[in-house]
Amino acid sequence: MEKIAVFPGSFDPFTVGHESIVLRGLNLFDRVIVAIGHNTTKNSCFSVEQRIRMVQEIFAGTPQVEVVTFEGLTVDFCKSINAKFILRGLRTSADFEYERAIGQMNKMMDDDIETVFLLTSTIHTPINSSIVREIMKNKGDVSAFIPKSLDIKKYLEE
Amino acid sequence: MEKIAVFPGSFDPFTVGHESIVLRGLNLFDRVIVAIGHNTTKNSCFSVEQRIRMVQEIFAGTPQVEVVTFEGLTVDFCKSINAKFILRGLRTSADFEYERAIGQMNKMMDDDIETVFLLTSTIHTPINSSIVREIMKNKGDVSAFIPKSLDIKKYLEE
Amino acid sequence: MEKIAVFPGSFDPFTVGHESIVLRGLNLFDRVIVAIGHNTTKNSCFSVEQRIRMVQEIFAGTPQVEVVTFEGLTVDFCKSINAKFILRGLRTSADFEYERAIGQMNKMMDDDIETVFLLTSTIHTPINSSIVREIMKNKGDVSAFIPKSLDIKKYLEE
Amino acid sequence: MEKIAVFPGSFDPFTVGHESIVLRGLNLFDRVIVAIGHNTTKNSCFSVEQRIRMVQEIFAGTPQVEVVTFEGLTVDFCKSINAKFILRGLRTSADFEYERAIGQMNKMMDDDIETVFLLTSTIHTPINSSIVREIMKNKGDVSAFIPKSLDIKKYLEE
Amino acid sequence: MEKIAVFPGSFDPFTVGHESIVLRGLNLFDRVIVAIGHNTTKNSCFSVEQRIRMVQEIFAGTPQVEVVTFEGLTVDFCKSINAKFILRGLRTSADFEYERAIGQMNKMMDDDIETVFLLTSTIHTPINSSIVREIMKNKGDVSAFIPKSLDIKKYLEE
Amino acid sequence: MEKIAVFPGSFDPFTVGHESIVLRGLNLFDRVIVAIGHNTTKNSCFSVEQRIRMVQEIFAGTPQVEVVTFEGLTVDFCKSINAKFILRGLRTSADFEYERAIGQMNKMMDDDIETVFLLTSTIHTPINSSIVREIMKNKGDVSAFIPKSLDIKKYLEE
Repeated sequence: MEKIAVFPGSFDPFTVGHESIVLRGLNLFDRVIVAIGHNTTKNSCFSVEQRIRMVQEIFAGTPQVEVVTFEGLTVDFCKSINAKFILRGLRTSADFEYERAIGQMNKMMDDDIETVFLLTSTIHTPINSSIVREIMKNKGDVSAFIPKSLDIKKYLEE
Repeated sequence: MEKIAVFPGSFDPFTVGHESIVLRGLNLFDRVIVAIGHNTTKNSCFSVEQRIRMVQEIFAGTPQVEVVTFEGLTVDFCKSINAKFILRGLRTSADFEYERAIGQMNKMMDDDIETVFLLTSTIHTPINSSIVREIMKNKGDVSAFIPKSLDIKKYLEE
Repeated sequence: MEKIAVFPGSFDPFTVGHESIVLRGLNLFDRVIVAIGHNTTKNSCFSVEQRIRMVQEIFAGTPQVEVVTFEGLTVDFCKSINAKFILRGLRTSADFEYERAIGQMNKMMDDDIETVFLLTSTIHTPINSSIVREIMKNKGDVSAFIPKSLDIKKYLEE
Repeated sequence: MEKIAVFPGSFDPFTVGHESIVLRGLNLFDRVIVAIGHNTTKNSCFSVEQRIRMVQEIFAGTPQVEVVTFEGLTVDFCKSINAKFILRGLRTSADFEYERAIGQMNKMMDDDIETVFLLTSTIHTPINSSIVREIMKNKGDVSAFIPKSLDIKKYLEE
Repeated sequence: MEKIAVFPGSFDPFTVGHESIVLRGLNLFDRVIVAIGHNTTKNSCFSVEQRIRMVQEIFAGTPQVEVVTFEGLTVDFCKSINAKFILRGLRTSADFEYERAIGQMNKMMDDDIETVFLLTSTIHTPINSSIVREIMKNKGDVSAFIPKSLDIKKYLEE
Repeated sequence: MEKIAVFPGSFDPFTVGHESIVLRGLNLFDRVIVAIGHNTTKNSCFSVEQRIRMVQEIFAGTPQVEVVTFEGLTVDFCKSINAKFILRGLRTSADFEYERAIGQMNKMMDDDIETVFLLTSTIHTPINSSIVREIMKNKGDVSAFIPKSLDIKKYLEE
């Protein structure tokens, strides 16, 4: 049976840290679905539609990675596409506490869905989207935090 | 002298985790006052009035538990009803850091009020009201997180 | 029914932080039993017998506090003296993680025993027995960390 | 070469904890610039202009401390005034995780700027501006948390 | 290509928490190798040989799970059997900090080996081998913490 | 007045992480004294005398860095050489909790000594001497974790 993982998030923007988790996830899964949640979009920097195009651009040469948007609960979305796994990156212990609450509550709601964690690469550990967003708002240079294959300036000028 | 504990929170909604802390608190205290704070009601799921009725329903057979709302500081409320104790449940180390700041600052303001902590039961550790609220907003089934004696669907349909 | 709490530890030595927890515990409990565990005595600074005398000296005027030694599991000791509560102080989130594991496993073994936590006072938060021990071994002055009523030099010279 | 440190924050309000960090920072640096960020001012208690006056009042007799406001990134502000150091206080491990992310990302953007951390004094560890703000909103007495040299009531009545 | 994961540890003893991680790991991997490290055996409760027999007994009906002992570094052992994955369970944020250090250093030594983390089940979160060992030494009942299929008394009497 | 910082530790071995903290410390201090504590030498990999030679080799071209050994308390050593600062690197929140206890207790014993923290570089965050030691014992390659200017093989063969 095909192993499908959902990689959920707001990805505003998608960082080198996210990219690394998805690529390494492909060693475990046949397909990874980058799933952009609709609900957490207050104060967003990029529109959902822009984020979809950005992720598509990053993984243009990697057909095992898809990008979608979804509404509602992550576990419900997983079931709707027959994915048995949620993929998550772990950076810090603050991350971990939050991910554990979500992961264990997901399992209380649907025991069939398993959350699988990979460590962020050492060099990506401090990178987090909300700080990247703050830097962009202040006209700072975020190129060190964004996948090399993505021309983020193009999106910032749209 | 009667030992009274205040169990403050927003309880939006009141979970099985809260219920367990209150019931176990009755082994320590003569009365436990569930005190719903007025101030943190942005993005609430249930009205304060609904939350009062829910807590009353849950503890209908337990006269040592009361439910009230309050405005202002928790320590001031405690003094107004002559309660010497604040009861809190601890789930995670993130909880703990926050509770310590509040508890130690409370003591700097009024050394007579003591905060008493119980551990959440193992099985309730991941449950947290804000995730429960998120699940309800997405039409998920939260029955595993809510006291058995509470018919939450009734309140959701109001 | 009398409310008895066991305050277990190695107390090598008993610090101002411990003293504060015991005294504040008396607002909750009728009696607090300081229970010195036999088993963790490698690299100890004071003998168990010395530690008993020290705690007796500290609480000489407080008959609701007793000091005993015990072997075996804390929950078994609690049952043997009909104590329903274990009293613990919380300083840091590292403390918390350890205390939670112990407290929740204790409850899995005996659901009747409840662990009750108080926060250390702000000023005592950094104090920890193993660092105090290290300071004593290096001939440092530990008087700031030890109850005022205790003449620790007397014990160091024994 | 003169050693200049920037002490950035929202300081709404400036607490005894902040005061202690700045004064102790003067043992390391020739000048400490208290830098009030413009951007995080939603739900503020005091206006930026009030906060400037408050910090000026606190350090009236200490010419090595200056107070300014800034817009944009902290690292860019540092460069604009030729400061090589960012000064920060550390209270809790939750603080630390956040400070590490910011500090390490700052270094990825500009390797010349070093973040230097001092521990808050034991007695100030629980004090945090957002809880102080909450207390003020509820008409509580915050004098224990504010520098002695500051008459905060004057500002609250403005 | 066959996906092989190494599940390294001292397993003194192997708990229900370990069992759950291995079984859930089989949804991700074709084979899971329980690998008992030789080096950390001071103060052990069971001999390495006993631990092997215990794990064999637990997974008697599950041929995808094997148990071996190894000496030296975990990454070197992985390479020797052509395993590309290390499987680990995460319980607490203290666990996480340690696992991150090990996992990221492993990756600095051999970028081909990926550490994959699963959350312990809610109910198993507090269980940890060193506390189980302490309970056994004090003649406590550890049956709640040990796989049901394992007759641990038999081994304790050997 | 000359600003002197003591950088205390066991340094068994001295890693690239330590080297980075010392070099960056020189931007703050006129001299940094690497101070090898005598007391924590059980299970050491290198003798104190070897560690001194290693640190000397690493900083051969940097006269502002000295290496010494000391016995007794760090604060007492600082006073004996008239150093007002202790320099420490922070990697993780587990580190932080421990460093805070030590740092705040040091200040309770001698208010004149200030502990100054720098963040480890992102790339050095996972590196810790005890894991490096474990790798060396298992004949692993530790060159990625050791200063480039140090020929550690020479010391391992001594």
